[in-house]
Amino acid sequence: MTQYVYSFGGGAADGDGKMKDVLGGKGAGLAEMSRAKLPVPPGFTVSTAVCNLYFQSGNQVPSQIQHQAGEALARLEEKMGQRLGDPQNPLLVSVRSGAKFSMPGMMDTILNLGLNDQTTETLAQKSGNPRFAYDCYRRFIQMFGNVVLDIGKNEFEHLFDSRKKKVKAKYDTDLTADDLKAVIADYKKLVREKTGKPFPQDARQQLAMARDAVFCSWHNARAIHYRKMNNIPDDLGTAVNVQAMVFGNLGDTSATGVGFTRNPATGLKEFYGEFLLNAQGEDVVAGIRTPKPISELKDVMPDVYQQLHTITSNLEKHYRDVQDFEFTIQDHKLYMLQTRNGKRTGPAAVRIAVEMVEEGLIDKREAVLRVDPMQLDQLLHPVMEDSSRNSLQLLARGLNASPGAAVGTVVFTADEAVVKAKNGPVVLVRAETVPDDIHGMEVAKGILTSRGGMTSHAAVVARGMGIPCVAGAGAVEVDEHRQEMRVQVNGKTTTLKEGDWLSLDGSTGEVFAGRAQTKDPDLSSGHLAKFMTWVDEFRTIGVRANADIPRDAKVARNFGAEGIGLCRTEHMFFAEDRIPHMQAMILARTEKDRRKALAKLLPMQRKDFAGLFEAMNGYPVVIRTLDPPLHEFLPKREELMVEIAVMKATRRPRKKIAEREELLRRVEELHEFNPMLGHRGCRLGITYPEITEMQARAIFEAAVQVAKKGVKVIPEVMIPLVGNVTELENQKKIVVQAADDVFKKAGQKVHYMVGTMIEVPRAAVTADKIAEQAEFFSFGTNDLTQTTFGFSRDDSGKFLKEYQDRKIFKDDPFAVLDQEGVGPLMRMAVEKGRQTRADLEVGICGEHGGEPSSVGFCVRVGMNYVSCSPYRVPIARLAAAQAALSTSKEEAMRTA
Amino acid sequence: MTQYVYSFGGGAADGDGKMKDVLGGKGAGLAEMSRAKLPVPPGFTVSTAVCNLYFQSGNQVPSQIQHQAGEALARLEEKMGQRLGDPQNPLLVSVRSGAKFSMPGMMDTILNLGLNDQTTETLAQKSGNPRFAYDCYRRFIQMFGNVVLDIGKNEFEHLFDSRKKKVKAKYDTDLTADDLKAVIADYKKLVREKTGKPFPQDARQQLAMARDAVFCSWHNARAIHYRKMNNIPDDLGTAVNVQAMVFGNLGDTSATGVGFTRNPATGLKEFYGEFLLNAQGEDVVAGIRTPKPISELKDVMPDVYQQLHTITSNLEKHYRDVQDFEFTIQDHKLYMLQTRNGKRTGPAAVRIAVEMVEEGLIDKREAVLRVDPMQLDQLLHPVMEDSSRNSLQLLARGLNASPGAAVGTVVFTADEAVVKAKNGPVVLVRAETVPDDIHGMEVAKGILTSRGGMTSHAAVVARGMGIPCVAGAGAVEVDEHRQEMRVQVNGKTTTLKEGDWLSLDGSTGEVFAGRAQTKDPDLSSGHLAKFMTWVDEFRTIGVRANADIPRDAKVARNFGAEGIGLCRTEHMFFAEDRIPHMQAMILARTEKDRRKALAKLLPMQRKDFAGLFEAMNGYPVVIRTLDPPLHEFLPKREELMVEIAVMKATRRPRKKIAEREELLRRVEELHEFNPMLGHRGCRLGITYPEITEMQARAIFEAAVQVAKKGVKVIPEVMIPLVGNVTELENQKKIVVQAADDVFKKAGQKVHYMVGTMIEVPRAAVTADKIAEQAEFFSFGTNDLTQTTFGFSRDDSGKFLKEYQDRKIFKDDPFAVLDQEGVGPLMRMAVEKGRQTRADLEVGICGEHGGEPSSVGFCVRVGMNYVSCSPYRVPIARLAAAQAALSTSKEEAMRTA
Repeated sequence: MTQYVYSFGGGAADGDGKMKDVLGGKGAGLAEMSRAKLPVPPGFTVSTAVCNLYFQSGNQVPSQIQHQAGEALARLEEKMGQRLGDPQNPLLVSVRSGAKFSMPGMMDTILNLGLNDQTTETLAQKSGNPRFAYDCYRRFIQMFGNVVLDIGKNEFEHLFDSRKKKVKAKYDTDLTADDLKAVIADYKKLVREKTGKPFPQDARQQLAMARDAVFCSWHNARAIHYRKMNNIPDDLGTAVNVQAMVFGNLGDTSATGVGFTRNPATGLKEFYGEFLLNAQGEDVVAGIRTPKPISELKDVMPDVYQQLHTITSNLEKHYRDVQDFEFTIQDHKLYMLQTRNGKRTGPAAVRIAVEMVEEGLIDKREAVLRVDPMQLDQLLHPVMEDSSRNSLQLLARGLNASPGAAVGTVVFTADEAVVKAKNGPVVLVRAETVPDDIHGMEVAKGILTSRGGMTSHAAVVARGMGIPCVAGAGAVEVDEHRQEMRVQVNGKTTTLKEGDWLSLDGSTGEVFAGRAQTKDPDLSSGHLAKFMTWVDEFRTIGVRANADIPRDAKVARNFGAEGIGLCRTEHMFFAEDRIPHMQAMILARTEKDRRKALAKLLPMQRKDFAGLFEAMNGYPVVIRTLDPPLHEFLPKREELMVEIAVMKATRRPRKKIAEREELLRRVEELHEFNPMLGHRGCRLGITYPEITEMQARAIFEAAVQVAKKGVKVIPEVMIPLVGNVTELENQKKIVVQAADDVFKKAGQKVHYMVGTMIEVPRAAVTADKIAEQAEFFSFGTNDLTQTTFGFSRDDSGKFLKEYQDRKIFKDDPFAVLDQEGVGPLMRMAVEKGRQTRADLEVGICGEHGGEPSSVGFCVRVGMNYVSCSPYRVPIARLAAAQAALSTSKEEAMRTA
Repeated sequence: MTQYVYSFGGGAADGDGKMKDVLGGKGAGLAEMSRAKLPVPPGFTVSTAVCNLYFQSGNQVPSQIQHQAGEALARLEEKMGQRLGDPQNPLLVSVRSGAKFSMPGMMDTILNLGLNDQTTETLAQKSGNPRFAYDCYRRFIQMFGNVVLDIGKNEFEHLFDSRKKKVKAKYDTDLTADDLKAVIADYKKLVREKTGKPFPQDARQQLAMARDAVFCSWHNARAIHYRKMNNIPDDLGTAVNVQAMVFGNLGDTSATGVGFTRNPATGLKEFYGEFLLNAQGEDVVAGIRTPKPISELKDVMPDVYQQLHTITSNLEKHYRDVQDFEFTIQDHKLYMLQTRNGKRTGPAAVRIAVEMVEEGLIDKREAVLRVDPMQLDQLLHPVMEDSSRNSLQLLARGLNASPGAAVGTVVFTADEAVVKAKNGPVVLVRAETVPDDIHGMEVAKGILTSRGGMTSHAAVVARGMGIPCVAGAGAVEVDEHRQEMRVQVNGKTTTLKEGDWLSLDGSTGEVFAGRAQTKDPDLSSGHLAKFMTWVDEFRTIGVRANADIPRDAKVARNFGAEGIGLCRTEHMFFAEDRIPHMQAMILARTEKDRRKALAKLLPMQRKDFAGLFEAMNGYPVVIRTLDPPLHEFLPKREELMVEIAVMKATRRPRKKIAEREELLRRVEELHEFNPMLGHRGCRLGITYPEITEMQARAIFEAAVQVAKKGVKVIPEVMIPLVGNVTELENQKKIVVQAADDVFKKAGQKVHYMVGTMIEVPRAAVTADKIAEQAEFFSFGTNDLTQTTFGFSRDDSGKFLKEYQDRKIFKDDPFAVLDQEGVGPLMRMAVEKGRQTRADLEVGICGEHGGEPSSVGFCVRVGMNYVSCSPYRVPIARLAAAQAALSTSKEEAMRTA
């Protein structure tokens, strides 16, 4: 018979820590801790499989499983010497969700289940603390009422606040036992009004309803959104953990807390966490009361502190990773409620990985696999310039909840963040964030909260996303109603409204008014430098950068780029001093006039190329010939049409009109219905061979000039948008001719290659033929994705979001390479190309070249290198190393 | 040692008729005729391989081959008892090109080679006809001067005409021997002026120069153009045929002529041809003198006529095909100069194929392979209505050179034809056509000449192209200078200028002023009906038609379509009574308002579908859901912008402006940078599910309604632009739901399928997954070609022509399916689709479905049917049959 329910506690467990699939992360942790004889409140876990069965059976738990759960409950009752719902000796339990992957704040939890009118009285008697008992009961009704019965939290809060007002209480703790009894009566009345039934008094019915609510919470909007963001499959399901309650709120001999075995923000090896005396767990996480640092526990309860420290240190050694744990102290007795591998910032992930190798806990291979490549992003972004720090007005200091500098205009709601982020960077400012704010946090450059600690929702989520965050900046008054934030600085109130500039330093917790300057991070020393050398030990393919100008090339070298994988020459033509020549070239009616304009552009291009070659001394530089359609360099057609129509309507001089009409005529000639699919790429070079010729000349003249200075120059000339080998053949001839001419004239040769982009499906299909001419391939996966799917990046915005929401697409294929549809064409191209030319160099220069799962694919199909934007180079290096270490990249990421 | 030169004549030959690859068509025919002991003037053929060697060796004939040619010449001299250049007994030869495939009028020919100042005198003496000798010499200098020395024909003609004027000669024949001697002197002077050298007197040098000129003519512009039009590879090369001269111009006992064993225009079994007394061959072909029907030869030389008839009848039996032959009679002695399979019109091809089966000459299989599918086009086009024939003014009667009715506006030059044909049908009117006119003839609907016979250039080329042609309409005076044509009718001059309407009946030779009405041809009886039944016996796949309205569906059934392969539902929305509802639907801001507009469209669509189902009783009807982007139904963005800008500049009422601005806002929302790659196809149906729902409802309501009348209805609902199975899954659910609803309500079910188009590469790559949902595939090869190449049909005009001219592309991939690049994706889709669903129905509905070589591909990859425009259905049926009969379609076409 399949086991669906697993007991744990009392120094033993049915399951163990490896059974995350079955027990979820929390359940597996509880089982493992029980086996390790840690002080875990006993309980049982209903497996994740039941979640799916529940939905398949029409929201019913099959009777066989109900039977198993009944037996487990009986065992728990026996262990605790208490019975659920027993008026004399009631067992109270917590009911928690727990999926394979941690989903912080996403799933609902119910505490103190088992309380009813009778058992509350018993609890009051037994604890000798009636206030505690009534407080538990009112909390339970509130949680159950909200999570299971779907009554708005604010409705309960409203009743609670009314009572406080009535008795003139300032804090919750000012309410007496009788006040709380009155609140309970109000709550029960609310439940009856809203559900038409009294609050359930039968404890077993409470348990069944809570269990079902946990299952249902798997499909709530926040959980779905979180899974989508984190690529967690929808069919994993959640387990339900039923565990005997222990109480951190039995007075000042009790406490509750959370902690990490190392600092999750910096990675520093320190015992790190927070606790609250006389509180239940959710008080810490919710950020409502600001908790105390765990070091202070040492003063209050030195023995317990020592026990906790020893237990958690052992847990870290056991799991060989940072542990994120929850504990409760009930009357000086320590209970471990949860332990799991701790989430951490990028800087922390790197530092922890490096130090754990140095401590001998893990090896380099594991260290490399431990860091999510995307997390490196947090180490690669600009930090605040000291000058800004000194010149801007310091508004407040909060907790340094997630590192990095953030600069943006203020927004006060998640919805506004989404709207405003389209036009520029925003910083989301909230009293505290809630899971419903996720969509706004995602697009913000930084997050500022006035309440909550290092483990508050804002802090946890921001670190996960790698967004700078300053939390709990109590001096900041966030007035959501008036849409402004106010800070008293030196007795004067500074007010910022939506749209004002704000700068945060998530690494120091500082908040500045105004727009700070930022600077690039240093990769040459410290933990990251060491980590990256290990990464490169395992990496099997090259990483180049896409860079059009020498400045970007230098940044790329600094980030470890081993060459330029894509230089877009057209970007050079958009500069102010060049576009007139470019326009003259386009408007020319004869080849002769075109050549005249091109002759003016040649020295400019030559200078650009020389700069790139110098920056990349010893590394290859892939230069793509002109790619965009010519009309991109001219005024917009519709604007000209409007201008001319207005000139005519207002009887402007004929001659002026005629001039604009002449320009419009040429613009009309060049107008295209689908510019993406138009006269661009090599098609331009074929119909205007003199353009390719000029560019090739500029490349080789620059190469010879720089080589003469002793710089090692490796030019690779890349022809875009080739679909047929005959196109490449045509363009290659021009390039080779230019090289021969230049080398002859200069009396010096430079080794170079001529290759092509693979960016239309036909190129992939006929790659064997194209490789007859191409010395290298570079996948332009932006265009290849557009043509393979048949939608353009510019236009797909209209439906792609809806596609993702409706789960028609899992990912945006322009962000994450579509391995199912585009992938096979790329694999085909690599295989066919190498059939013809065994030593064909193959790379990728689309934006996917810096996306970790895409890099993994590139490694698996045997590319020679990936190329990405300079800031993505370290990410690509790590992703490439991980892919080399693991045939299944996904596995690698999940162990991190 | 490789044989490069092949002798023939005197009842024997080195080669034979099968060696077209080596000897070219003409050389193989001469060899075969020699072997058949026919009276062929002896000679030798320099093989096609030499042509390529000539160019590879830098325009030199390798010495080894020169040696072989020398030996062959010696043998020829021996056979003739004459020597080339011998002053006493000179051998005269013709030098002719001859490639594997006949290229009429494309290659240059030189006659009378061997004449010089001395041998001309000898010829004058020996023939006793000095005038004849001088005429030969002056013709030779003229041809040689033009073809070999590249001196314009008109320069010689000018000298000749000047001389005629001087001596007041009306006809060429009015010139005396002395006049001709003077012409010769003028010609020689011209040659010296133009080349700086005297006219070559050395006969062997003449021969070498002529041979080289033939080789070079392989690469002249006309030849290249002809090959491109006819898909003849450029590397075949031409052979050179050197043959002893015989003379049709030795007075009235001599003649020259051409003929066919059956009428090449109608296919009628009649001895058919023309001859000219006292003339050389080019006089007939050039159309300068109008020749006499061959039946008149019977009266002039009954014996020779009988001999010719017997020989050619035997040749037809030998080759089992219509023979196109050339002959010369020298002093009552018949020489056969050439025979080859005759080109014929479509109607003739069908009639000849059918009658040859009835005569037992060939079997049905061969008959089916004999007709080029594209030629059927000539039988499928409208013929002139009798009412027009009676009401329009009959201008003239000419020769019925190529059948079919043509209606268009008059143009007088090929260049004008190209320009004007873009705006409407044109008829090209010329005194006589020349090979340089090809590009204009290609685009004309019909051709009218005032001079030339059934075998004139105009007639031959028009028949080959399937363009109606009336030739030699002597009453028509074509004034190219004044750009008008004048005809005397009943003593009154009718003048037509460029742009005036003209109608031709190529089947009767009639020429009408004005615009005739035409009617569809009848396929239900006659030779074509019989032929098509044989075609269908061999055909293995279905042929459907693309039709959007019942009228087209009826035409398609008439042409033998076995269903509708594509009904584009959007075409129904563009109708005047519908577009307001469509616009209302698009402008609606809520689903409710959209549904309101859709509810008005539903009954209209239902009616359209009902009509299609009725027309296709018993055959499937594939209906595609809405495909184009919505902005296609709204006013154009730039026009609105201009309108509003002008309204503002001229201070029009605010309210009016606001209205237009509101419309513009919506247009802007829907605006796309690349509509081809935008929000269209199933992407629309996914974001506006109510559109798909309405269409599905209309389909099934129509199906049920028509089925109740006893009509067999087979709807196939096709979802466009699917790239991912999830898209199809989404749309299929809506369609199935609509079907269930309609069937339930009607109490009647109709069998139907839901399938998809395969028109983006991703659909092909993931066809296995898509086939999990799709019950059928239909290739949309227009879009698939666009996305595979990455260029749109609308925009590629800017470079595609240049691509073809530069031989970067062989064909326009939108006309001829790209089997190298798009083909493999299609093959992949068929294979992967059938892996998942063995009985998957696969078809094609792109325009390639009516192009013969593409149909061949569809047969080879195992499609179930092709679908094309109604007028292409018979062509597709024949192409499909031929592909079934022959794995190599190209071979099949070449035997035709």
